[in-house]
Amino acid sequence: MTGIDSTPLSSTTRTTLGRYPDRARTDRRDLHAVLDAGVVCHLGTVVDGAPLVLPTSFGRIGDTLYLHGSSGATSLRAAAEGAPVCVTVTHVDGIVYARSVFSHSVNYRCAVIHGVALRVEDEGQKLAGLRALADHMAPGSWEHARGPTTKELAATVLLSLDMVEASVKVRTGPPGDDEEDIASARCWAGVVPIVTNWGAPQRCPRLPDDILVPDHVAHRYSARS
Amino acid sequence: MTGIDSTPLSSTTRTTLGRYPDRARTDRRDLHAVLDAGVVCHLGTVVDGAPLVLPTSFGRIGDTLYLHGSSGATSLRAAAEGAPVCVTVTHVDGIVYARSVFSHSVNYRCAVIHGVALRVEDEGQKLAGLRALADHMAPGSWEHARGPTTKELAATVLLSLDMVEASVKVRTGPPGDDEEDIASARCWAGVVPIVTNWGAPQRCPRLPDDILVPDHVAHRYSARS
Repeated sequence: MTGIDSTPLSSTTRTTLGRYPDRARTDRRDLHAVLDAGVVCHLGTVVDGAPLVLPTSFGRIGDTLYLHGSSGATSLRAAAEGAPVCVTVTHVDGIVYARSVFSHSVNYRCAVIHGVALRVEDEGQKLAGLRALADHMAPGSWEHARGPTTKELAATVLLSLDMVEASVKVRTGPPGDDEEDIASARCWAGVVPIVTNWGAPQRCPRLPDDILVPDHVAHRYSARS
Repeated sequence: MTGIDSTPLSSTTRTTLGRYPDRARTDRRDLHAVLDAGVVCHLGTVVDGAPLVLPTSFGRIGDTLYLHGSSGATSLRAAAEGAPVCVTVTHVDGIVYARSVFSHSVNYRCAVIHGVALRVEDEGQKLAGLRALADHMAPGSWEHARGPTTKELAATVLLSLDMVEASVKVRTGPPGDDEEDIASARCWAGVVPIVTNWGAPQRCPRLPDDILVPDHVAHRYSARS
């Protein structure tokens, strides 16, 4: 393990798991993997003393996370003003059917990042961050589609969040029933996986007939698991 | 429209959408539909002044949401102490490829509930709430698997949240490009759907061979979309 990827995740109080510590992953590559596999994150902010949790797209360059939105959006505005944020990306991989109701669980991968976001003002960094967002959500679109105008850039707030304080928690595998239940129970136990896939591309009804699905779009459907 | 289902959603400041108000759904049945289709929610709390967003399972009885967890979990503890919470359930339905990078979007359904959760102490309500959680996550398991013991019940905190203040936001359909881009662009535009399905049940390796997959489990896989 060399380079930034081998830097372990933080071990502050709020990133050290109190429960099921065996589910913690402490390699920074695990953080990247959970983020890169996600489409949206849930951004948590505090507005007037109350939590606000909203889904939003994101991008990543190394250990910096980028979030964007309209300059009018409440949660973006709160985050841009230097208030602490929490960004969570979760994949639900399956339902764990145990021999007891109590031991039922969910297989999942979850990354949680804590920090204070900064508003990106530098034009070069803003373009790079927005490109990271586009590359994450729709790889290939930055080159294929029309790029942002000065007016569109001005209407967009870009936030950066250094992923210094983060935790990753993963549950995989069969149920963790008590030995007593395993020995005596006569009910089914196992996992029902949840599988997420790309569907076949749907053309915009207003698209000219001669514009075919480009490779960077077709690839998602054809490469589905 | 009659009964509780026709009660419109709230129209407080934080549940009234400032941006894309046309994406708002104000029928309580839309809230129920988004929740019932979700496996986990993201629970937002405020801990030491900072937001904490964690995924957790949930259940619903009418307009009451139930959350549970270990009595030792930080976010549950914060929520049980009467602090405001935000519960968000999001479905990501597709990536919207627009003619401009700026108009790229995500098709989604999202429910956001604001309120103060109450710790359920009444034994009858606690059992009903836990059953709602089990019925939501693994329908049929409450009857099939071993029920909770007194000790397991004591180790579980159940919270109830009245869904008085809630909002639902839904985006569907093709990209919303500017007319100018629609007229002139030569790039592909449309939607790549994201499809979530149940996979084939995986037996616990320690399950006796003669215990077959019961109907309530097999049903999920066979009824997949």
